Amino acid sequence: MGATLPVEVLTIGTELLLGFTVDTNAAFLGTTLADAGVAVTRRATVGDEADDIRAAVDAALTRTGLVITTGGLGPTRDDITKHVIADLLAMPLEFDELLWASLVERWARMGRTISESNRSQAMVPRGGVVLPNKWGSASGLWLEGPRGIVILLPGVPFEMRNLIQHEVLPRLAERAGDHVIRSRMLRTSGIAESSLGERVADLSDVIAPLTIAYLPDLTGVDLRLTAWGLPASEADGRLDAAAALLRERVGAWIYADGAMDLAEVLIAECAERGKTLAVAESCTGGLLGARLTAISGASAVFLGSAVTYSDAAKSAMLDVDATLVQRDGAVSPLVAEAMVRGVVARLDASCGVAITGIAGPTGGSEEKPVGTVWFAFSVGGAVDSVKVIFPGTRPEVQARAVQAALLGLLRRIRGAAVPGGTMI
Amino acid sequence: MGATLPVEVLTIGTELLLGFTVDTNAAFLGTTLADAGVAVTRRATVGDEADDIRAAVDAALTRTGLVITTGGLGPTRDDITKHVIADLLAMPLEFDELLWASLVERWARMGRTISESNRSQAMVPRGGVVLPNKWGSASGLWLEGPRGIVILLPGVPFEMRNLIQHEVLPRLAERAGDHVIRSRMLRTSGIAESSLGERVADLSDVIAPLTIAYLPDLTGVDLRLTAWGLPASEADGRLDAAAALLRERVGAWIYADGAMDLAEVLIAECAERGKTLAVAESCTGGLLGARLTAISGASAVFLGSAVTYSDAAKSAMLDVDATLVQRDGAVSPLVAEAMVRGVVARLDASCGVAITGIAGPTGGSEEKPVGTVWFAFSVGGAVDSVKVIFPGTRPEVQARAVQAALLGLLRRIRGAAVPGGTMI
Repeated sequence: MGATLPVEVLTIGTELLLGFTVDTNAAFLGTTLADAGVAVTRRATVGDEADDIRAAVDAALTRTGLVITTGGLGPTRDDITKHVIADLLAMPLEFDELLWASLVERWARMGRTISESNRSQAMVPRGGVVLPNKWGSASGLWLEGPRGIVILLPGVPFEMRNLIQHEVLPRLAERAGDHVIRSRMLRTSGIAESSLGERVADLSDVIAPLTIAYLPDLTGVDLRLTAWGLPASEADGRLDAAAALLRERVGAWIYADGAMDLAEVLIAECAERGKTLAVAESCTGGLLGARLTAISGASAVFLGSAVTYSDAAKSAMLDVDATLVQRDGAVSPLVAEAMVRGVVARLDASCGVAITGIAGPTGGSEEKPVGTVWFAFSVGGAVDSVKVIFPGTRPEVQARAVQAALLGLLRRIRGAAVPGGTMI
Repeated sequence: MGATLPVEVLTIGTELLLGFTVDTNAAFLGTTLADAGVAVTRRATVGDEADDIRAAVDAALTRTGLVITTGGLGPTRDDITKHVIADLLAMPLEFDELLWASLVERWARMGRTISESNRSQAMVPRGGVVLPNKWGSASGLWLEGPRGIVILLPGVPFEMRNLIQHEVLPRLAERAGDHVIRSRMLRTSGIAESSLGERVADLSDVIAPLTIAYLPDLTGVDLRLTAWGLPASEADGRLDAAAALLRERVGAWIYADGAMDLAEVLIAECAERGKTLAVAESCTGGLLGARLTAISGASAVFLGSAVTYSDAAKSAMLDVDATLVQRDGAVSPLVAEAMVRGVVARLDASCGVAITGIAGPTGGSEEKPVGTVWFAFSVGGAVDSVKVIFPGTRPEVQARAVQAALLGLLRRIRGAAVPGGTMI
């Protein structure tokens, strides 16, 4: 690892220890600070107990001299973070008239009268800097003393994130200097992690000191390149070069660079080519439509979806021949093809996809086990169908089927060859 | 807090510190251990550095004498947890022939030959107990010495959870005795957190030593009652009594007891009453269908959904009069009612709901701001419509609209009065 500024994070709250809340703040702090060249070297969670908070901050100051705490800044008696840390740093609390005035005004704007119990929120440790919280009522605090810096932030994720971005990072970046920890993500789908590994494993030495991580989930495998503690310009140059090498090897499976969702890529490509989309879903129950309409601007491309969960609905909404369903079963290539033909004709769309399968946990048979899904694609009048058997639980099969439908549609619209004979 | 066994949790992995992975193990451990009477009193995360792991385990043993670690048990050189802790506890590593034989066999069953580098996974600290891992290759370890107990578990969530359930909890429960930390959840929807608070605030003293927590999310507000460290039978009795008190006050908004999803409740009530459901969606794009079909067994009730995202689709799939859409706009009471009539007729359903709205971020106007959603319900032939303006981002408006549709349908099917004139 190169030169980075170390920081310890302390999250405070009995709720977190008991697991009633998943600590998403921790992950946000890790990635956001890293990009500013600040490395979280240790993280701890304690309950709302004065002794525990005090001991944890004390130990962290001794180790790194830079601590960020979240939580325990509210107006109730549970909220003791500020009092404990002010005492530890020997910075006695003083009433801040300006801060109080801003709180009174904030409450007035919401048409409410502030209560006296909120006065504790206007107490500031002597010599501390108030980090104004425009997103809530608990201000952040920047406390700097002979032993180091303690930054106190509220635990509400929305408020904490805004304070980090607007108040904390600009102050920390000065101290971190030019060194950053920076990542680049290449998103793949339709290829197994082990196959990806075989194709790119030998690049590890070539791209060093950058590292490569494989991050599989239900939608595919993301490849993450990371530069650790390099000057920003060098990090970017090396990341560009490494990404180009990966594209040479496995570009056929890469659908996006960065954080783009596959549905977003598909919508953008359809919009560019003036194509419209219609969808027919059975076992995915509306998830494919939901993925598409989660993208703002989907309305330029996506016309609609027929979620035909029952056999009768397939006939009523998509004109699928009921005798065909009876003969072949709902999960069959001809029914999938009839579904996509039906929805494309009904909605007068230029492209379409149909999904019919067995998501489980019941409904499987020896011939058609749970996870069996037939897809039919219609692009420019040409219709084809493909079968895949997905592993996993009901929601996993559903999520994988939706991703496969998006990928198959994108490939056909691009007219891109399917590498290695992969079916979707 | 009553009598409970304290434990500290140490999660190990540089990935966790950098925020590339959200630490879901922590929340699982918190809730699962609490229910067995074991309270997590402190949690820490360190990277894959020997000094940091050693110092963290050392400090935790001094504080509580009981530590669970997760992560760092794999076969690669990053995985140093076992070596560091064996050294700290002065329990030298020894090769375990039986464990090695079971690993060789496990690999053979998968049709693979184990590599020599895996031999490190068969090294066991002298005097340690192997916790067999049937779900992966890294065994857990139970190390007991003069300073206390350290339990080493793999970091892979699926493996960790199974080892906790099958190997760790039975051993810990013996030591925790009869005392448990136990919770009961009552789920509400359609009422604001502050209104709930006003109706039940005075009960806090009545139900003590039980505590009550308000947990708001996009689907409503959950009320969680918790008994801390009481004998199991006393905890259950007190929780039953407190839940009954809450039902008296706010029962009209409680849709479920425990972890049941609103869609699950609706499907169950429809099945019981022999009713079938059809759905028409616009701005929610398929999410309502997806919520319903996420429930295994939905096929007995849910027939299908018409996701009519474009205006043309509303006519083509639901026979909505195009001139009506032109005159009133797609987000209007008459269009919502025409949509629900259309889908109920097409699918021959006994109940239905239609959603049409502006999820944002674009598409709003002064008259119809972003968040405006019209619902139409059809139950037993009677059709009515309701407007709600939801706050939040696009996905938040979508999630709130889906929940409101489910709630409105459930209330109408139950024939329950809507308390306080709430619209849905």
